[in-house]
Amino acid sequence: MSSPNRSTHIRLTSHPEPSTATSRHPIRWGAQDPKERGPVIGSVTNPADRNVIGAHGGSYSLYRALAISSRALNPVARPDLHNTHPTAEIGPHPQWFEPGKIVSLDPWGHLVGQVYGDEIAGGVDIRPTIAITKARLNMPEILSAMGLKRLKADGGVLHESGDISVTKVAVDPVWYLPGIAARFGCSEGELRRTLFEQTGGMFPELVTRPDMSVFLPPIGNITVYIIGDVAGLSDPKRRIACRVHDECNGSDVFGSDICTCRPYLVHGIEECVREAQSGGVGVIAYNRKEGRALGEVTKFLVYNARKRQEGGDSATTYFERTECVAGVQDARFQQLMPDVLHWLGIRRIDRLMSMSNMKYDAITGSGIEVVERVPIPAELVPPDAQVELEAKKAAGYYTPDGAPDASDLSQVKGRDLERF
Amino acid sequence: MSSPNRSTHIRLTSHPEPSTATSRHPIRWGAQDPKERGPVIGSVTNPADRNVIGAHGGSYSLYRALAISSRALNPVARPDLHNTHPTAEIGPHPQWFEPGKIVSLDPWGHLVGQVYGDEIAGGVDIRPTIAITKARLNMPEILSAMGLKRLKADGGVLHESGDISVTKVAVDPVWYLPGIAARFGCSEGELRRTLFEQTGGMFPELVTRPDMSVFLPPIGNITVYIIGDVAGLSDPKRRIACRVHDECNGSDVFGSDICTCRPYLVHGIEECVREAQSGGVGVIAYNRKEGRALGEVTKFLVYNARKRQEGGDSATTYFERTECVAGVQDARFQQLMPDVLHWLGIRRIDRLMSMSNMKYDAITGSGIEVVERVPIPAELVPPDAQVELEAKKAAGYYTPDGAPDASDLSQVKGRDLERF
Repeated sequence: MSSPNRSTHIRLTSHPEPSTATSRHPIRWGAQDPKERGPVIGSVTNPADRNVIGAHGGSYSLYRALAISSRALNPVARPDLHNTHPTAEIGPHPQWFEPGKIVSLDPWGHLVGQVYGDEIAGGVDIRPTIAITKARLNMPEILSAMGLKRLKADGGVLHESGDISVTKVAVDPVWYLPGIAARFGCSEGELRRTLFEQTGGMFPELVTRPDMSVFLPPIGNITVYIIGDVAGLSDPKRRIACRVHDECNGSDVFGSDICTCRPYLVHGIEECVREAQSGGVGVIAYNRKEGRALGEVTKFLVYNARKRQEGGDSATTYFERTECVAGVQDARFQQLMPDVLHWLGIRRIDRLMSMSNMKYDAITGSGIEVVERVPIPAELVPPDAQVELEAKKAAGYYTPDGAPDASDLSQVKGRDLERF
Repeated sequence: MSSPNRSTHIRLTSHPEPSTATSRHPIRWGAQDPKERGPVIGSVTNPADRNVIGAHGGSYSLYRALAISSRALNPVARPDLHNTHPTAEIGPHPQWFEPGKIVSLDPWGHLVGQVYGDEIAGGVDIRPTIAITKARLNMPEILSAMGLKRLKADGGVLHESGDISVTKVAVDPVWYLPGIAARFGCSEGELRRTLFEQTGGMFPELVTRPDMSVFLPPIGNITVYIIGDVAGLSDPKRRIACRVHDECNGSDVFGSDICTCRPYLVHGIEECVREAQSGGVGVIAYNRKEGRALGEVTKFLVYNARKRQEGGDSATTYFERTECVAGVQDARFQQLMPDVLHWLGIRRIDRLMSMSNMKYDAITGSGIEVVERVPIPAELVPPDAQVELEAKKAAGYYTPDGAPDASDLSQVKGRDLERF
């Protein structure tokens, strides 16, 4: 296998030049014609073609580097995209071209093989940033719901085996920096500099390449599960049920009982199945934002501080403890979250399975109508998760029963560390 | 709130200087005395103190930058670590100081408040890279196992409610670059350069700061779930059951039936409970390496290529399809995986719930004895997952029944895309 590095010259950063890719392969974000918009070229097999900052695959670009270091991967290998094209059509939708509507993903990301086929055939290494496939899901809670007659197999959406038929979509982040800055209310220059400095100096091109407006950040992807007819997502006559879920590995996978994450997610899936069975469409958008996008180490430190504080774990001081450890109560910033809903063509959500005011405000503020908000059924809330849920209700979470007052809140206590 | 950026001067990278932190706060990796080893300082509140490349929180440093851009987080905020200390003692173990044994995490990462308390009190912003807390897990499959009398509540490890009491640990990656290079069989210079170039130019300090040997890569963390007595992990008289699991969101959370990930994980947890109930200890190590560390977009592209190939999804061509799309069959590289087991003090695993030859070879090659390998019970393998499992058996996965031959393999076919 050839050497992983092409020459002995190392270029620490780059600067705008008349001959660079941004002039040969310019990106005109939001342009209707994909040829005019131009492809996102983040591969490193030919550095001269690159027109974005960062690399494909988010964090996984580091594993690619390890694969090359260990001589298992040829550094100039290009993907054979034969047969990888989407299993369902999504777009183009008018939202793709509405200014500022989509700034954190590439709406053409799943279609590169079709719309940039000529360029790829001509030797440009253009890679999909979105992939669409089909799957069958089998979850024990759905089988229980069938046993309890809450759900019934129909042979199409839900099978006798408990399998749910879905279309699933993986979406890698592609950030249009001027649009991201606008969402966060700062200048593009400030955003670029803060991203560079707060990551300990990641990607100097953020500051040296103002001509490159697109960034592939090394963060996790979004996964979307669509239950029912994908084409129905942009049809105003079809009802849509939706859960927007932020990753919580401890609950989503392991069933940790300190929060409502998996129970609410599963409830969302059940509602999506029901909606699809009655002719609508269900959508689950799963975002990799572990521990309110503060990461799991911070999350576990906060758990300890909550459980050990004087008076024990309490709804009254729930948010304070996160802020003490992390400097901020929440870093999820739902500002970018609606992009994927616009990409799907959604204009109205009939049932939103979320109580988060931040998610609701972000979705409705971006122009999507929300008809009904569906709280988590009380019987699904694990015992130790009451602290979080009541604290959130007091802080503005949606609840049809009214928010708890200070005295209610002070009654809500979590399990002590000694009783785990 | 103060401006996110301290001055108008932007420094694109840094270079070794006599006055830099690497001389004031040198890291002597592997030293026995934590004071001599020195703290890992990756925070950006005081750039002059930094002695590593990268930033804390892995990928989540980008969300911290967004929090600062939107003025929700003070860029110089420091964590209040009061009450966040570990709920269980881990180490120091002799493995922490055996040369080359641990190179991808900081063994002192959970103890910074204790061993570097003086430095923190003196104003150095030292942050934990490991956090240890307690939790209760409630999983429907464990409740089923109780219903079927495979498991029985004991009121300590497993409760009548189905709750499992665990100690859980979040471990952020901390890479000692000379040690990482040794694991991958390349020079440190080659590793640094490949990491820099293959990520599209992330962290020029990888090449400009040979004096800084430690890197906080923006990849996902490890979570460890310990069932039973943590102190038993380093006691040669206690039995240990262990599952080393690589993230597969589609199966782990959503129960996708194309692989065995969640079923094997849950089986591992059940075995861990049983081991803990009979006086041993159970360990689940969960690694964020989605889609063989190729990411979910690549994974879904490969699913489509597998399902659409001539003759349909087949065990014979299982690995080929990944290699066509990704250039490599697998980028998980189990070389670094055993570090966390050494950190826990483990010298012997009595029951390893994994059939992976790569995991087995990495664990035993690093000096941990494996007494028994426990395959996934046949009844837990979902129908569409046979293709993957048989292909892996033929490629060297452990199986007590013997590997399938070419003719067996060609019989194993997956579901067609039309039948999802």
